[in-house]
Amino acid sequence: MAELQAAPLTQEALQAEALSKLLEGLQQDEDNTQDEHAHFMHMAIPRIGIGMDCSVTPLQHGGLSLVQTTDFFYPLVDDPYMMGKIACANVLSDMYAMGVTECDNMLMLLGVSTKMTEKERDIVMPLIMRGFKDSALEAGTTVTGGQTVVNPWCTIGGVASTVCQPNEYIVPDNAVVGDVLVLTKPLGTQVAVNAHQWLDQPERWNRIKLVVSEDDVRKAYQRAMDSMARLNRIAARLMHKYNAHGATDVTGFGLLGHAQNLAKHQKNEVSFVIHNLPVIAKMAAVAKACGNMFQLLQGHSAETSGGLLICLPREQAAAYCKDIEKQEGYQAWIIGIVEKGNRTARIIDKPRVIEVPAKEKDGELW
Amino acid sequence: MAELQAAPLTQEALQAEALSKLLEGLQQDEDNTQDEHAHFMHMAIPRIGIGMDCSVTPLQHGGLSLVQTTDFFYPLVDDPYMMGKIACANVLSDMYAMGVTECDNMLMLLGVSTKMTEKERDIVMPLIMRGFKDSALEAGTTVTGGQTVVNPWCTIGGVASTVCQPNEYIVPDNAVVGDVLVLTKPLGTQVAVNAHQWLDQPERWNRIKLVVSEDDVRKAYQRAMDSMARLNRIAARLMHKYNAHGATDVTGFGLLGHAQNLAKHQKNEVSFVIHNLPVIAKMAAVAKACGNMFQLLQGHSAETSGGLLICLPREQAAAYCKDIEKQEGYQAWIIGIVEKGNRTARIIDKPRVIEVPAKEKDGELW
Repeated sequence: MAELQAAPLTQEALQAEALSKLLEGLQQDEDNTQDEHAHFMHMAIPRIGIGMDCSVTPLQHGGLSLVQTTDFFYPLVDDPYMMGKIACANVLSDMYAMGVTECDNMLMLLGVSTKMTEKERDIVMPLIMRGFKDSALEAGTTVTGGQTVVNPWCTIGGVASTVCQPNEYIVPDNAVVGDVLVLTKPLGTQVAVNAHQWLDQPERWNRIKLVVSEDDVRKAYQRAMDSMARLNRIAARLMHKYNAHGATDVTGFGLLGHAQNLAKHQKNEVSFVIHNLPVIAKMAAVAKACGNMFQLLQGHSAETSGGLLICLPREQAAAYCKDIEKQEGYQAWIIGIVEKGNRTARIIDKPRVIEVPAKEKDGELW
Repeated sequence: MAELQAAPLTQEALQAEALSKLLEGLQQDEDNTQDEHAHFMHMAIPRIGIGMDCSVTPLQHGGLSLVQTTDFFYPLVDDPYMMGKIACANVLSDMYAMGVTECDNMLMLLGVSTKMTEKERDIVMPLIMRGFKDSALEAGTTVTGGQTVVNPWCTIGGVASTVCQPNEYIVPDNAVVGDVLVLTKPLGTQVAVNAHQWLDQPERWNRIKLVVSEDDVRKAYQRAMDSMARLNRIAARLMHKYNAHGATDVTGFGLLGHAQNLAKHQKNEVSFVIHNLPVIAKMAAVAKACGNMFQLLQGHSAETSGGLLICLPREQAAAYCKDIEKQEGYQAWIIGIVEKGNRTARIIDKPRVIEVPAKEKDGELW
């Protein structure tokens, strides 16, 4: 009863397409009506608008900027508490991608499904809210407000805001030739979530049962939930320590979509080339067995609350990966390089797939 | 084609009920886990959480606070551009209720309906966005980001944030015995919007055609749209000039619901008594003809982007109303008094209904 119904799969694709189109229009306006920079004591403070992970708005108060992001989506796991945690981690992830580690305030956005019975609602919604708040607490922030509506589909999301000095965030436009690309979470969350749903749908399950066992799928699903609920906060903190040149988080547009967006915003004439794809164990095989459905190895499979994709100086990248593993017990991977180019990103023809085992940080197998 | 489909009427009621219940849970947590005040130079800076119009979060930077609000809902008028304006005015209204007149940043939240054709979407959604942005511009702020999803129902909303000094907002808890209550917009927007929909539904229309003409309904609908799209910004500015003791904005819970909420948060032992109900012309008659459906004269009819309900010192209230009319061409009304009591609000038995003509500010009749 306390299970959430996941929304139809097609919406992700629809969403990506509709979003791009609508944002184009908004971006054009943006370009016409806003100065790119505000100034404080003769120092340019960037104004960052639509298109990157966060908006950065210079304030009239002593060089401070308001950094904000919002995100909401539909349930994709059947555990309401975990869903709340994932939603919160996903909202905060946009801030972490900018190197911001402290969030001043969060708001929660909730849509209660019209299809829920009163009883379901009274059990499920408080669990989602609890998960969201617990995750906010873990991030050292609090949820002080929000909005709840009734909606055909259950909806969960939020707003994260922080006010900070210019040295507290990293404008993601400074990649240089010779940098390497680091990814802090494995790919394949959408594949794992779908494969898990298919355990109850024989005709779907038949399509993948030759390449994966039920047990593999359950492990992958647990690993995906765990990964999606994990905060990118330490990843963000270490960006400062190892002089990151910029980052983004990997979500609805997939690894390549977000890599391309990051490449497009670079000041220097660079391009990103991706050689390695760390994927939750067995999920690459599942994706392949499904033909063109996920486009995981092409970099288009949507992720939820994915890892940070970070441009790091080559000599710092290994230390970054080692440090994050030491602090959190999770691996990060060098997945590509920054070379001279025209601000695009691509995955090489036959990328190496790194199978990421579905184990917990203390070495315990699920 | 560029028309919006309004969502079912019942959702407002559902929403109010579900919301109250969910927020109770969140509020309890709130009470347990947060200090009520932060401190800056030995001065208490209030932390305001769930339950009032905005959240106020003290920042670590020189006595500044982050004031935020979010709101989203479903289309209720068939003009997409006006819908965008109304949605923006509605989001900002929560800030204005706190006396905050400058908004630093806005985010837009959009749900594109799955029921729209691609063509409808490409015409309707940009118009909504344009309306929202134009309203933000009128408010002296900008929209720098947001989130768009695909959803069964079209959704529109946003987030407003500002960073300010304590003297820039008015904590709405300072009403004293002898104050009077001022309302800055007429009631009846929901009645007008529904009556307008019924023009095309004979069985509905038959219920009200004895008390209202088609022309009356069209005028009332125009007046409602105009009223909902109007910013409460000057109303907020004048709160400072005339020493307001607190305010709220009238939205989904109706006049009485919001009055009760405001009363509940007062420091002093006061109660609010409402004697007058300014209502868009003929809409009181329509509401009466519909039996218990709207509960307009009982103060429960939902409003969208309604006026501010302000506690003002008795000797300042008339000047406040005169000033707002001079600046904007719209009337405001003294609708009640603050007396000694136990933090409740009520409407007297036979309140006086003030018929507010459906005219524009320059005296032109619609």
